[in-house]
Amino acid sequence: MSKEIPYKIYLEENEIPKAWYNLRADMKNKPAPLLSPETLKPMSAKELAPVFCDELISQELDENTAYFPIPQDILDFYKMYRPAPLIRAYCLEKQLDTPAKIYYKFEGNNTSGSHKLNSAIVQAYYAKKQGLKGVTTETGAGQWGTALSMACSYLGLDCKVYMVKVSYEQKPFRREVMRTYGASVTPSPSTETEIGRKILEAHPGTGGSLGCAISEAVEKATKTEGYRYVLGSVLNQVMLHQSVIGLESKIALDKYGIKPDIIIGCAGGGSNLGGLIAPFMGEKIRGEADYRIIAVEPKSCPSFTRGKYAYDYCDTGMVCPLAKMYTLGSNFIPAPNHAGGLRYHGMNSTLSQLYADGLMEAVSVEQTSVFAAAEQFARIEGILPAPESSHAIKVAIDEAVKCKETGEEKTILFGLTGTGYFDMMSYEKFHDGKMFDYTPTDEELQASFETLPKLDIK
Amino acid sequence: MSKEIPYKIYLEENEIPKAWYNLRADMKNKPAPLLSPETLKPMSAKELAPVFCDELISQELDENTAYFPIPQDILDFYKMYRPAPLIRAYCLEKQLDTPAKIYYKFEGNNTSGSHKLNSAIVQAYYAKKQGLKGVTTETGAGQWGTALSMACSYLGLDCKVYMVKVSYEQKPFRREVMRTYGASVTPSPSTETEIGRKILEAHPGTGGSLGCAISEAVEKATKTEGYRYVLGSVLNQVMLHQSVIGLESKIALDKYGIKPDIIIGCAGGGSNLGGLIAPFMGEKIRGEADYRIIAVEPKSCPSFTRGKYAYDYCDTGMVCPLAKMYTLGSNFIPAPNHAGGLRYHGMNSTLSQLYADGLMEAVSVEQTSVFAAAEQFARIEGILPAPESSHAIKVAIDEAVKCKETGEEKTILFGLTGTGYFDMMSYEKFHDGKMFDYTPTDEELQASFETLPKLDIK
Repeated sequence: MSKEIPYKIYLEENEIPKAWYNLRADMKNKPAPLLSPETLKPMSAKELAPVFCDELISQELDENTAYFPIPQDILDFYKMYRPAPLIRAYCLEKQLDTPAKIYYKFEGNNTSGSHKLNSAIVQAYYAKKQGLKGVTTETGAGQWGTALSMACSYLGLDCKVYMVKVSYEQKPFRREVMRTYGASVTPSPSTETEIGRKILEAHPGTGGSLGCAISEAVEKATKTEGYRYVLGSVLNQVMLHQSVIGLESKIALDKYGIKPDIIIGCAGGGSNLGGLIAPFMGEKIRGEADYRIIAVEPKSCPSFTRGKYAYDYCDTGMVCPLAKMYTLGSNFIPAPNHAGGLRYHGMNSTLSQLYADGLMEAVSVEQTSVFAAAEQFARIEGILPAPESSHAIKVAIDEAVKCKETGEEKTILFGLTGTGYFDMMSYEKFHDGKMFDYTPTDEELQASFETLPKLDIK
Repeated sequence: MSKEIPYKIYLEENEIPKAWYNLRADMKNKPAPLLSPETLKPMSAKELAPVFCDELISQELDENTAYFPIPQDILDFYKMYRPAPLIRAYCLEKQLDTPAKIYYKFEGNNTSGSHKLNSAIVQAYYAKKQGLKGVTTETGAGQWGTALSMACSYLGLDCKVYMVKVSYEQKPFRREVMRTYGASVTPSPSTETEIGRKILEAHPGTGGSLGCAISEAVEKATKTEGYRYVLGSVLNQVMLHQSVIGLESKIALDKYGIKPDIIIGCAGGGSNLGGLIAPFMGEKIRGEADYRIIAVEPKSCPSFTRGKYAYDYCDTGMVCPLAKMYTLGSNFIPAPNHAGGLRYHGMNSTLSQLYADGLMEAVSVEQTSVFAAAEQFARIEGILPAPESSHAIKVAIDEAVKCKETGEEKTILFGLTGTGYFDMMSYEKFHDGKMFDYTPTDEELQASFETLPKLDIK
């Protein structure tokens, strides 16, 4: 118990989890099922098959199996960049002069620069196993697209990425990374798809959105022989794969007898947050432990804190299934000056259910405060964080400062999902005082909620 | 001995070396001393004092002390990003279908993106200890400047960086990283210094060179109260600090009973190569082991393979001491299309002596072949390498392919010094077929050699 705690806790390779944990198996209130956009009835595996890979569909629909063994080939790939270190923020603690102990799980030590690789390799693996030729996807900041292109290159799969136009333009170097890994990258909305052309017609000059890029990627996959669509967040299968983050964190903490009081993750579609908290939330639900769990989202895209808990389309084009989730409406697009990532209009349905059940909290933060926290963290902890991850840093610092005020020696764990090397234009804006905060007005949100489907479902 | 070798060998924190190794102590033929540009006599500590920090001068001049203890504060900083993993390139081996075993020491897992941080923190530490206000330096690709700005930010020192203009323009995001860490960055040649103005007058529109940026940084340091100059390569003190790379590699290899046959490092000024090979070369000199040691340099800047072994200025402005080294002449600037880094005209004097004594080999490679190797490596090993590091990859692959032909099960160790996230413009050129090779003609080199000082020194 009193073992000296190193700066970085690295597990041995043979301590990498051998199975993913499916939090839904332990939930009393299961998340609501996906609905078919045509029948408005729960989607069957058969209905999902034209879009998704078969094995991923069975993971998506399974809410009873607690553990899914990780195939050996994926474990081998994981070994190339995992285990990810759990880092004690000794320097930050000292600077804050807080009695709190701060740990972060750092998922940025791989070329995709984020945790996205954890699921990308899994989805590419099952596509390959199914004998497919390739996959399509969307990407926002480019983290997911990069991760997927790495996984596809490793397995010899074709990879077609629709990249949110504003990111494509702001982050030209991400495109080159994807090209290095052999992917083709198209700015979205594009004229390549029907839905893309429709969106361009309705909103000429739009910077695009994740929801819109998703529609294009899905259309492309369903209309191209030997292709399926894969998605980097939002879905429960992704949360399942990302449970490796939380499982590894827990093993590392347990090794040193550390029990976190507060667990903090940034939340866009929910993939990192869901993965990080999974085993801890499982304990909480089973009554074995208690944790404060906090989701952090941008004030300019506040799905949890200001969204509606309702069935909504996962994409702008309304071709995807509907999910019951906290949502701002599938047409919601954050203000153009938003540089902090986490731009998705909705939220993973499992996390939504947990939030609705009061099992976790959510806060929203302004992006200038996020970049200030990012810079503070970079200077003292060395790692240049992604804007997305910095949402969690911001709230971790806030909580550590509260501990200073109250004198409480709380243990804080947060997810540092990735690095900000490709976000320097946003950092530049911040340095030059050209970054502004934007919070949508109630009227704007109300207008966006109007697009929610009017369904007669309890 | 037959322990299963993991993908990544991570040492424990308490296995990080506690002392740097000074290879010169074991050399029979010591490297030639630095000469004063004024008296042409060996520089004394007193003469170096206006330029360098005192403790670093004593490290620079000491060729007898084999081990320098690493101060605890530096060990603490090292723990933030070290130990660096020694990685077995299982996937690359499999792809090459070679009986060779390939290991690489990966130094890119920190925000500076390279091994440069190993020396940056040391130099900043001694500047701080001496009560200085700040330091000046030059940077090429920006790796060293980033590393130094990180170290200075951590210690609360002012940091002034002269960045080779062509890199400043090609790599705008590096500048923002340095700004994030609070450094000021000036494209060189600049009008801020006398030597900068002189060079601009003689070569209007020049893209600059490391040698020229050095001159500016030295001038600034010597003319500003409370400042000293620090340098990221070339000097023996840097090689001393970088010995942590080789020492860690050796500890990791020894743990698993692995003995490399071939050790490969890229060579610009020599900091990585010198650090990587130090303990192995020590054994070789002492007759305890034998290794093939290979320096890899760009064909467009071939100091080892086509340079003269002579006393030359370390900088274009001829304000720095002279070093006996393999050099292309202090005015040499690689062709503008050169994108592969390693642009320095000379080479560390210790490495130069070792090369002159036949203790190591050198090869030069063309940049398109370097980028091809980089892409091959990225796709199969996951890590997107820096162009500099990819020189070593190229030759490691070549050697592994030779092993396939001969059936020899050689063990290859190479230094993967950093990541290429800020080099995507060069990758783009490569992808678009817009990258060309350039090898200076004999006449061009001859003209450059004309600028070598005519000294009457044996």
